[in-house]
Amino acid sequence: MPASGLPFDDIRALFPLMPEGSKQAEAAVRARQAQLTKPEGSLGRLDDLAAFLASWQDKARPTIDQPLVAVFAGNHGVTAKGVSAYPASVTRAMLENFSAGGAAINQICATYGIGLKVFELALDIPTGDITEGAAMDEAACAATIAFGMEAIAGDVDLLCLGEMGIGNTTVAAAIYTALYGGSAADWVGRGTGASDPVFERKIAAVETAIALHRDHLNDPLEVLRRLGGREIAAIAGAILAARMQRVPVILDGFVVCAAAAVLQALDPTALDHCIAGHVSAEQAHRAVLKRLGKEPLLDLGMRLGEGTGAALALGIFKAALACTRDMATFAEAGVAGKIEA
Amino acid sequence: MPASGLPFDDIRALFPLMPEGSKQAEAAVRARQAQLTKPEGSLGRLDDLAAFLASWQDKARPTIDQPLVAVFAGNHGVTAKGVSAYPASVTRAMLENFSAGGAAINQICATYGIGLKVFELALDIPTGDITEGAAMDEAACAATIAFGMEAIAGDVDLLCLGEMGIGNTTVAAAIYTALYGGSAADWVGRGTGASDPVFERKIAAVETAIALHRDHLNDPLEVLRRLGGREIAAIAGAILAARMQRVPVILDGFVVCAAAAVLQALDPTALDHCIAGHVSAEQAHRAVLKRLGKEPLLDLGMRLGEGTGAALALGIFKAALACTRDMATFAEAGVAGKIEA
Repeated sequence: MPASGLPFDDIRALFPLMPEGSKQAEAAVRARQAQLTKPEGSLGRLDDLAAFLASWQDKARPTIDQPLVAVFAGNHGVTAKGVSAYPASVTRAMLENFSAGGAAINQICATYGIGLKVFELALDIPTGDITEGAAMDEAACAATIAFGMEAIAGDVDLLCLGEMGIGNTTVAAAIYTALYGGSAADWVGRGTGASDPVFERKIAAVETAIALHRDHLNDPLEVLRRLGGREIAAIAGAILAARMQRVPVILDGFVVCAAAAVLQALDPTALDHCIAGHVSAEQAHRAVLKRLGKEPLLDLGMRLGEGTGAALALGIFKAALACTRDMATFAEAGVAGKIEA
Repeated sequence: MPASGLPFDDIRALFPLMPEGSKQAEAAVRARQAQLTKPEGSLGRLDDLAAFLASWQDKARPTIDQPLVAVFAGNHGVTAKGVSAYPASVTRAMLENFSAGGAAINQICATYGIGLKVFELALDIPTGDITEGAAMDEAACAATIAFGMEAIAGDVDLLCLGEMGIGNTTVAAAIYTALYGGSAADWVGRGTGASDPVFERKIAAVETAIALHRDHLNDPLEVLRRLGGREIAAIAGAILAARMQRVPVILDGFVVCAAAAVLQALDPTALDHCIAGHVSAEQAHRAVLKRLGKEPLLDLGMRLGEGTGAALALGIFKAALACTRDMATFAEAGVAGKIEA
């Protein structure tokens, strides 16, 4: 970044440069779909997914040759306030489990042939406790966003985003409360399975954090650095970098969407290249998706994170692309078309 | 069948012999799931799917090694009444398309590694026009059910059912009207994309058929033979045979569920080994699923048939099974468990 600018300036400078979807590539796919051996529109959202891929990849023949789940992991100072059903040590232990191939996301990636990369974000230095101060300073937050941008560089053609971080549903709820208003209780849920006392502490932590930072929450990047976590900052960077590189994105659940919400608050078009993979069981996720203007692809009562909902949705994308790409046309198959009424 | 009995007697005799799910196999899978490296319940319906497989396969380690989509195709005399947007010749043309690998179901099966078998049911002899008489006589209907039972014999461990048959959404709507009451308009939808005049003719055909057969609709097998089609009879047989052989079933859309509805009307427990793969865009399908007591796995606005919705759902089953089968336990991974409140 230029020595003279503030760290966030370089991030803000990217938004006016975001490419739009390719109407031409999308129209090419739609024209092909109209010729395929099926009643028009009968594949429902499958056709929309293939058109979405075409538009954001800018390819009349879209691909899912290099799909990737990128999981970002961070630790959170607010765990000192007893906001999770699990100890903070589980974040690192789960990273080892990812490496050993033992977590849910490993199995889903193996099922659908999706690459998996896990990015550890200074786990030994948790972010500041948001009830007592800012999670990060501006330089650290901007550097983490930049890390997320770098992390997905390479030959990815469809990106799923996931996260791991004990305490991060509390942090995400704080971001939503800051961005969307309402009370902390509107946005706090049970996370990994909070008991009543843990749930009460989550609400109290968000209330305290919002009260502490209330004079600085008009700027979404300030919301991110004060209330966010490193994984959320990195995911925001990854979403933004994907847009710049024309990589469509499948969002996962409650925590990933907090990163998306920050970007949308900065620019209402920033998520046009993103699909909501699923709606999770975390109580406020449905309301979040409504704010994001996203209709989730799946609704399976999941609340695990790790990118699991997004990766499952990628399995649907693969079938959608296969239909658009490989089905015969009416002409090729010699199938009669529709009778006029 | 015994020479003395009526053809349907052998079908009816099977219902008291239907096996129940294995509580032991299901409990074994649930016990394993509780030890896996994830918050309990956080995989939502994925855990339920694996437990369902265990129960109906009677395997503590369920499998999806031989998944199959079985598509049954028939032709319908009622197409003479102008009830479809497509000519009846499309049924055969689409079978050739299946053989050549050009249809949507071919691509979805290829995506998830599912076997595909297509069964042609006397396409050159359409069933009787249900507005003028019975679709089939009892011997033909029973023989077609028996054909469906034979069709899935072999090493199948998860079965998706699909259909192809121009005119068969009209026939399915007639079955629902007979079984569930209400008016024809409650159950008739747009099928492959009926224009207003076609849609009106569909409603009229169902009304006429119900009026014609009204004195004979108390017996669900009579409903099937009078108002059904060959593919629907064969699918009923396949569902029943799957139950006897402990093969779990994924139902597809509006037409496949008409076969399921006949079985459920004969015995309310007859569909316990079945999952609804999706809810289709055919307007009455959601109401049908409510009657069947099935929560659909997917809701993607599809209305194609061919087993496409069921096959997509099988893709989700594969991920669900992989998680239950291959994830590490907390003990194996050395991950700490939940803190007590």
